[in-house]
Amino acid sequence: MSDVHLLRRSRLRERCAAHGGAACAVLITRVANVRYLTGSAVPGAVLLLAPGGRDTLVVPADLAPAGQPASGERSLQVRAPAAADEDGAVTAAALAARAGADSLAVEEHDLTVARHRALATAAPGLGLTALTSTVEQQRLVKDEEEIAALRIAAEITDHALGELLESILVGRTERHLALELERRLIDHGAEGPAFPTSVATGGHAGLAGHLPTDRRVEEGDFLSVCLGARYRGYRCRIGRTFVIGTAPSDWQIELYELVFAAQRAGREALLPGTPCREVDRVTRQVLDAGGYGDALGPATGHGVGLEIGEDPRLAPAVMSKLDDRVPVTVEPGVHLPGRGGVRLDDTLVVRPQADGGPELLTITTKELLAL
Amino acid sequence: MSDVHLLRRSRLRERCAAHGGAACAVLITRVANVRYLTGSAVPGAVLLLAPGGRDTLVVPADLAPAGQPASGERSLQVRAPAAADEDGAVTAAALAARAGADSLAVEEHDLTVARHRALATAAPGLGLTALTSTVEQQRLVKDEEEIAALRIAAEITDHALGELLESILVGRTERHLALELERRLIDHGAEGPAFPTSVATGGHAGLAGHLPTDRRVEEGDFLSVCLGARYRGYRCRIGRTFVIGTAPSDWQIELYELVFAAQRAGREALLPGTPCREVDRVTRQVLDAGGYGDALGPATGHGVGLEIGEDPRLAPAVMSKLDDRVPVTVEPGVHLPGRGGVRLDDTLVVRPQADGGPELLTITTKELLAL
Repeated sequence: MSDVHLLRRSRLRERCAAHGGAACAVLITRVANVRYLTGSAVPGAVLLLAPGGRDTLVVPADLAPAGQPASGERSLQVRAPAAADEDGAVTAAALAARAGADSLAVEEHDLTVARHRALATAAPGLGLTALTSTVEQQRLVKDEEEIAALRIAAEITDHALGELLESILVGRTERHLALELERRLIDHGAEGPAFPTSVATGGHAGLAGHLPTDRRVEEGDFLSVCLGARYRGYRCRIGRTFVIGTAPSDWQIELYELVFAAQRAGREALLPGTPCREVDRVTRQVLDAGGYGDALGPATGHGVGLEIGEDPRLAPAVMSKLDDRVPVTVEPGVHLPGRGGVRLDDTLVVRPQADGGPELLTITTKELLAL
Repeated sequence: MSDVHLLRRSRLRERCAAHGGAACAVLITRVANVRYLTGSAVPGAVLLLAPGGRDTLVVPADLAPAGQPASGERSLQVRAPAAADEDGAVTAAALAARAGADSLAVEEHDLTVARHRALATAAPGLGLTALTSTVEQQRLVKDEEEIAALRIAAEITDHALGELLESILVGRTERHLALELERRLIDHGAEGPAFPTSVATGGHAGLAGHLPTDRRVEEGDFLSVCLGARYRGYRCRIGRTFVIGTAPSDWQIELYELVFAAQRAGREALLPGTPCREVDRVTRQVLDAGGYGDALGPATGHGVGLEIGEDPRLAPAVMSKLDDRVPVTVEPGVHLPGRGGVRLDDTLVVRPQADGGPELLTITTKELLAL
């Protein structure tokens, strides 16, 4: 693990030196980026890459004894802030100035205005520049070890969902079912849920990000669930919709088949070189043709990894193309106010046709089950 | 509930108008502040108080149907961003400009540099000013309804911990015990844990914020646990240390009694009008006298509420005084590298002597139990 993190930091250094010169230091504050570059998941830890190859992880004073990098690598120094209650980022800025840096590239999409001002005050000689989303771009294509972690997260998620489907659902509340799913994720080895589990029944079904309520599952309902495990920091997502009772009604079958066809179109488009907006377009087009184009949200999917919502977004205005080994979700849904609706979410990895095409990580069936 | 939120917003309006004039609009982005002022816990929602008494909650496009305020109050308009994938804060800034505002007070301690710039671009005629921590100050003293929620959170926490103490602990891992505690919190009605549950055994015991590992509980260990329930958004904290096996050894008894005495000194100092640094001083003084002053972190406690770490901090450089109805933790700890240590955390509400003095919410015993 240590070598992986060292290599990632070297790549970042090279990119930054190319833009900012040899005397440019880099400050990483975004939690997922610190973890990606060091392996450390200590809350509040920040990473400084100073000129001369010194890398320092600054961890909060009261967590310092626990702050050794996960890998125990020697190239990464761990230290506490200069003052016990000082922000580690302020300590890092002062360190950068002392190490001879003339500028410090910071994550303006992560630092608050107040914190940015505190850095400028702590190291007045240092020019603060913007790192933009350099590390996020570096995180976009995953290595096979990262994909393996996502694969395990998906297996755990499939197990948890599979067990729930074998139990009695009628009469139980959304909240109760969501809690049970989260427990099962942990039973099967997840660090925790990748995001708040959504369980939506009746009129709620098909709503994106629905927070579970005390509504009970009833005969004839659509039931949509959306969950994912976090494993070694990596997060996946699955969404499925079921019908409760003996047999689905005609409108339910029609809506389900439409969303299924839309989601399949999106999944099949996941090849290296495909524009992200093209995946969105082919998905959206199926729903448009069925008259439900307006029911779709702003995106039909997004990247996953150390965060549940990463680049690339699969949305109309996105200009980038898909790359090999980029994990994404495809998650179209239609919600009809007062009636409910259908969502189908999968996590897949973009792979070339020669390697068998897109790799589906979340393998729970997408047949319309009547439970 | 609706009246409470309306009243809170009116108070905020008055304060802001006093500083920024009648044409000053206010943008609230910090999650806990949006919840405090509207009751809404929709992720990504932002609140705009525009001139003329119009309050608007802007919720992400794909969550808009679920975005009705919890209370259903009519004075709060709910709307989606202008463009489906636009940041609600940008929409709110444009709304403020159209409503005739000449300035917009923003939470610089919450907005990132990048988001702040996007607001300035979206509404170029609007002067962006700093709201500082106005809402946090308003949240400091709790009303009896908020304290009731904290009291329930504490009851749930005590139940979960009490059940764990009745089970066999030797041979189980820190990670397993932490998961079991979190499940029990949920079983007893918590929305979730207030913060990541810490279970620390052997050499880890007494470490603040220790993340559970696969180390197993052994005979003779100190075992320290720190957990809390979240109930209606309100978060409490308890920490206890136990000895595993038949009887504690002498050094364990001595260290425990010292931390206990320090914590009691802090608890007893929680009266309206007491300087925050005085609570810290009396706690620290006991540990100093025992020779363990250096083992203490930068603060001996902090406020709790919709966030687990709120003002006031109980630390040496803090200048404010305690008020009636401010809930705080008192949580000194000593960790001896290689040997372990002791932490004792309680959540209490500051009350005047005439009302019986500080109200202890977390009532699990602080006797040194051998389990």
